[in-house]
Amino acid sequence: MSIYGTLYRKRIAASWFFQRRFSNSGVNYPAIDELNKELESIFGERPPSSSLNSTPTIEPEYNPNSDQKPKLTHVDSTGQAKMVDISHKGDTKRVAIATCRVLLGPKVFPLVASNQIAKGDVLNVAKLAGIMGAKNTCSLIPLCHNIMLSNVRVDLKLNDKDYSVEIEGEVGTTGQTGVEMEALTAVSVAGLTVYDMCKAASKDICVTDICLQQKSGGKSGSWSRGK
Amino acid sequence: MSIYGTLYRKRIAASWFFQRRFSNSGVNYPAIDELNKELESIFGERPPSSSLNSTPTIEPEYNPNSDQKPKLTHVDSTGQAKMVDISHKGDTKRVAIATCRVLLGPKVFPLVASNQIAKGDVLNVAKLAGIMGAKNTCSLIPLCHNIMLSNVRVDLKLNDKDYSVEIEGEVGTTGQTGVEMEALTAVSVAGLTVYDMCKAASKDICVTDICLQQKSGGKSGSWSRGK
Amino acid sequence: MSIYGTLYRKRIAASWFFQRRFSNSGVNYPAIDELNKELESIFGERPPSSSLNSTPTIEPEYNPNSDQKPKLTHVDSTGQAKMVDISHKGDTKRVAIATCRVLLGPKVFPLVASNQIAKGDVLNVAKLAGIMGAKNTCSLIPLCHNIMLSNVRVDLKLNDKDYSVEIEGEVGTTGQTGVEMEALTAVSVAGLTVYDMCKAASKDICVTDICLQQKSGGKSGSWSRGK
Amino acid sequence: MSIYGTLYRKRIAASWFFQRRFSNSGVNYPAIDELNKELESIFGERPPSSSLNSTPTIEPEYNPNSDQKPKLTHVDSTGQAKMVDISHKGDTKRVAIATCRVLLGPKVFPLVASNQIAKGDVLNVAKLAGIMGAKNTCSLIPLCHNIMLSNVRVDLKLNDKDYSVEIEGEVGTTGQTGVEMEALTAVSVAGLTVYDMCKAASKDICVTDICLQQKSGGKSGSWSRGK
Amino acid sequence: MSIYGTLYRKRIAASWFFQRRFSNSGVNYPAIDELNKELESIFGERPPSSSLNSTPTIEPEYNPNSDQKPKLTHVDSTGQAKMVDISHKGDTKRVAIATCRVLLGPKVFPLVASNQIAKGDVLNVAKLAGIMGAKNTCSLIPLCHNIMLSNVRVDLKLNDKDYSVEIEGEVGTTGQTGVEMEALTAVSVAGLTVYDMCKAASKDICVTDICLQQKSGGKSGSWSRGK
Amino acid sequence: MSIYGTLYRKRIAASWFFQRRFSNSGVNYPAIDELNKELESIFGERPPSSSLNSTPTIEPEYNPNSDQKPKLTHVDSTGQAKMVDISHKGDTKRVAIATCRVLLGPKVFPLVASNQIAKGDVLNVAKLAGIMGAKNTCSLIPLCHNIMLSNVRVDLKLNDKDYSVEIEGEVGTTGQTGVEMEALTAVSVAGLTVYDMCKAASKDICVTDICLQQKSGGKSGSWSRGK
Repeated sequence: MSIYGTLYRKRIAASWFFQRRFSNSGVNYPAIDELNKELESIFGERPPSSSLNSTPTIEPEYNPNSDQKPKLTHVDSTGQAKMVDISHKGDTKRVAIATCRVLLGPKVFPLVASNQIAKGDVLNVAKLAGIMGAKNTCSLIPLCHNIMLSNVRVDLKLNDKDYSVEIEGEVGTTGQTGVEMEALTAVSVAGLTVYDMCKAASKDICVTDICLQQKSGGKSGSWSRGK
Repeated sequence: MSIYGTLYRKRIAASWFFQRRFSNSGVNYPAIDELNKELESIFGERPPSSSLNSTPTIEPEYNPNSDQKPKLTHVDSTGQAKMVDISHKGDTKRVAIATCRVLLGPKVFPLVASNQIAKGDVLNVAKLAGIMGAKNTCSLIPLCHNIMLSNVRVDLKLNDKDYSVEIEGEVGTTGQTGVEMEALTAVSVAGLTVYDMCKAASKDICVTDICLQQKSGGKSGSWSRGK
Repeated sequence: MSIYGTLYRKRIAASWFFQRRFSNSGVNYPAIDELNKELESIFGERPPSSSLNSTPTIEPEYNPNSDQKPKLTHVDSTGQAKMVDISHKGDTKRVAIATCRVLLGPKVFPLVASNQIAKGDVLNVAKLAGIMGAKNTCSLIPLCHNIMLSNVRVDLKLNDKDYSVEIEGEVGTTGQTGVEMEALTAVSVAGLTVYDMCKAASKDICVTDICLQQKSGGKSGSWSRGK
Repeated sequence: MSIYGTLYRKRIAASWFFQRRFSNSGVNYPAIDELNKELESIFGERPPSSSLNSTPTIEPEYNPNSDQKPKLTHVDSTGQAKMVDISHKGDTKRVAIATCRVLLGPKVFPLVASNQIAKGDVLNVAKLAGIMGAKNTCSLIPLCHNIMLSNVRVDLKLNDKDYSVEIEGEVGTTGQTGVEMEALTAVSVAGLTVYDMCKAASKDICVTDICLQQKSGGKSGSWSRGK
Repeated sequence: MSIYGTLYRKRIAASWFFQRRFSNSGVNYPAIDELNKELESIFGERPPSSSLNSTPTIEPEYNPNSDQKPKLTHVDSTGQAKMVDISHKGDTKRVAIATCRVLLGPKVFPLVASNQIAKGDVLNVAKLAGIMGAKNTCSLIPLCHNIMLSNVRVDLKLNDKDYSVEIEGEVGTTGQTGVEMEALTAVSVAGLTVYDMCKAASKDICVTDICLQQKSGGKSGSWSRGK
Repeated sequence: MSIYGTLYRKRIAASWFFQRRFSNSGVNYPAIDELNKELESIFGERPPSSSLNSTPTIEPEYNPNSDQKPKLTHVDSTGQAKMVDISHKGDTKRVAIATCRVLLGPKVFPLVASNQIAKGDVLNVAKLAGIMGAKNTCSLIPLCHNIMLSNVRVDLKLNDKDYSVEIEGEVGTTGQTGVEMEALTAVSVAGLTVYDMCKAASKDICVTDICLQQKSGGKSGSWSRGK
């Protein structure tokens, strides 16, 4: 067997590991069948199979440690990463609301509250950064669709109970895919901007609890974060 | 007094609120003097005064509720937001390390661990997104300098104790300003990408604890997050 | 009263200044009522109230200099900046035409006219820059929607009467919001590019008269700049 | 005749060269008439005339070497570059598939096949770069429309026959214009990324054969590259 | 002579028009020699010749209307547009200050002055847009170098004499090329943002007088706009 | 053994495949030792080990098919993709020249040569696109450093021998890393733009032979493509 054949076989074997784990019962992983059942009960539905992304037709008896080359017609050797096809989806009005918190701590909080931060008005700058950040989502998140947003709102308020900034972002669109990532990106960028504005005063600030709060629209309908 | 004079006076008054709070002892806010002392004890050093950003020469006796117009030679009516001048700083080697965590929960964790997420290999996609995100920092954070990065590293690992993805990002440069924001942006974008990859399986995932862990270089020297 | 309460009160007071000026008759600004009437006669219609952006329910008798804390249910402490919601608008064909002029002066004009500028063909480079600039509008203008453009045209011609370059830009879309900003950005970027190409010959060049000439489509219908 | 008149005349003359070649039978280029006929038979249809882009009404007898100034009402002195107007087109589902190959050579091929390249997993990084590159198309290609993509897929596979990486990209949209450029950009960026990942091992790598394979949708319907 | 030879000859001839005008005395344009002298007196110095951009070695006796093909070893048929080479320049501290004005008119001015514009605080949003715009300069202006900025400042103030917003932008760097374009872009984007914020109140607003006020640093030293 | 332990083990095993192939002699791949020797003779030098990117200390006797869990202190489970650290490198002047060809075919070639393409002057638009594309390199190529370019040149010429456009791009910098990718990206984007301008005339156009021709500067010194 040639060196390159061997090399190629290794990649296939590894690729096979990544793509076929838990979905194939012919090989020597005894726990997989029951594991798959549990996963299916957890996951609820199987991920949609992509007709474009030809899955390798590996013979189930293939053993990665043998010298036998797997019989493939077309191998996608790089994993299944792809931008999900939304062309069959109808346009619906969609809204998503996300939140995050920035823990300023007792030393920085009053500086922000009194607008004493030398670099500028923290909350105003962060608000605009969040709004503009929402429009950058698709260039930040590799598999995110580029979509038109019909509105973006980012609000920040000071919470003197825990010396934090509470950020809420809302994004809307009328289209084929949701805006959860845009809302999450908006509050994240706003939170990072709060850090940037305050970092001369303290580096011990955390941006935390970036969560989706609710979404509506689309096939999966409305969702709200449980308490 | 003309309408526009009145209008203008209001903006000055409000601007004055934002810019001069706690830094002026002649006016009728009795608590400010002691507050300023406390703030100075908290803040350690006063924010550097900018020669470019002409500060208003407001008479200390000015009362925003009176009809008397403040005497200003040049008013920056829009607050002091600016990109800090770093031209006087020398080039030093600088490194920053930041971390964050993505709480997947017990249902999504095994799907990521077994690479079963339909959209692709979660950790690999997030890793690249984080590296590319670091390069986008200055276009996301309004007052951040655009700088050249000499290295970016983003690592993700699964923690089966709390069903989380732990993300660490490290950025280096040789230049006049630090790379804390680049490291924080790298881990944030990686964390958001984990969310994006997994959101078909669950929307109840949080990106949390985005913190700077350590930095070195620059005038302020080395810093490590206390435990 | 605690320090943080005091700090917080100041921000609210200042926020109140920015948000409520001229819209509230209970406080000690005697000229405001009549001013509001004049403003309403000028503005024609009140800005649409946003249900998402909860407005503070400040008691009219609140006095920012008193110790009494304003009663608010939810304060948007960062002003009302937001991307306007256009989700309720229908798709219509929209066109906008903008113009600007670049005053080259008698020394630079012949160099451009004869294509003698060392950096390249000024008008051709500026034309392309303007077209590409239109596509960048939403990343430059913070509260601008990202929209798809169905056409962009930028034309430049030399006017030897006043040694100027006259630039006209036209942008079209079929969508929920207008393209005025795209047309204005196109001619501005084209004008700035003329400056860049010629600045080795003279720095005394001005880009001027960036104006909208006409627009059509949308709820407000057609508009033309009066002569 | 003044200097500026002379200068201006030169530009017009040159502009006239670029714009009117082969479309005017009064001047001293004997071969043009028959050339135009041949071109029309080749081109099939004449390019759509743009009402916005006023064409110069140059007298056919104008001779660029004479002193006679061409009579123009409005000259577009910068050529006809413009983003084609698609506002009259209907939305249709459109798909385009493009391919390219990266010739690694016998020394680099096994390093990629065995994932030995120090900079990372070549095929995975290139795949993501290609997907993200498709979303950047309209900012790279000057006259390309910015459009929303409903799916992007990039697949890479190793061909040990000629030590190459074969890349296939597919892009879909529902809209007024095609996605050929997006598919071609996706495979090009993926190919360039393969180069970048491997360039420490060899600089003698070529990205080649960037071709459209098929497209469907739109007025011109389906097209497949002949063998 | 073949058709393609003819076609090619035409392009060369036109290219020759653009590249060689006024720099060649052997051809049949009698006025060129004296014109060149005047241009040189205007231009002060000849544009630096680029060794990389091979100039065509056209025989002076070539006549574009003859059938004789010009003898060229290498023709740059696309004009001389290029990003100027700055690699031989030393790093110096450079500063540029630019200004512009936005003419709001008497109806919109009080709305801005009193912060009554529904879309947000006009001056604050425009200020941030200007700062961020400076960082985008090299992606807007085709032949502009991408450089690191050491500071950006944008100030806006209301002028109730002519109902305008006056904008001043200052940009600094330590590098091989100037920051005039960055300062001009900053004030332009700030001005366009003022328009965007106010356009619901009036479309009859102009951004005007975008001028460089002063620059320092670099080989050409300091420059100030004459009054 | 718990499900999650099993899941985790699988990922480790697969990760182990990707990271350790051919670099470990204790396992049951008999051909690896000699393969490694050959690879080392090909590769010349081993990739620099990164102190930041902790490599797993997998016991050599680990067998991925056994139930025994590998003993790791810290696993980078996502592969080694990273932006290479260049902070230790000195600044040197660097130049890279790349080329590509666009095969127009006999039908489209005369349309380009005679500037008959309706969308604009193909070569001029492509030239500018290439120059601007060079500045976008670091946002397209995931692991590319963002660097300042001191010059960019893109030249296109028509070759009527094979009906092609020949594109040459040259990029220079003074810095810590090379500009090969910038030169390659410049010619690729120029080539894609030629396609875009001509695609209404024919879709059967290929961009091909994107190759580095020469580079100079940096530790590896000068390199020229062999003939």
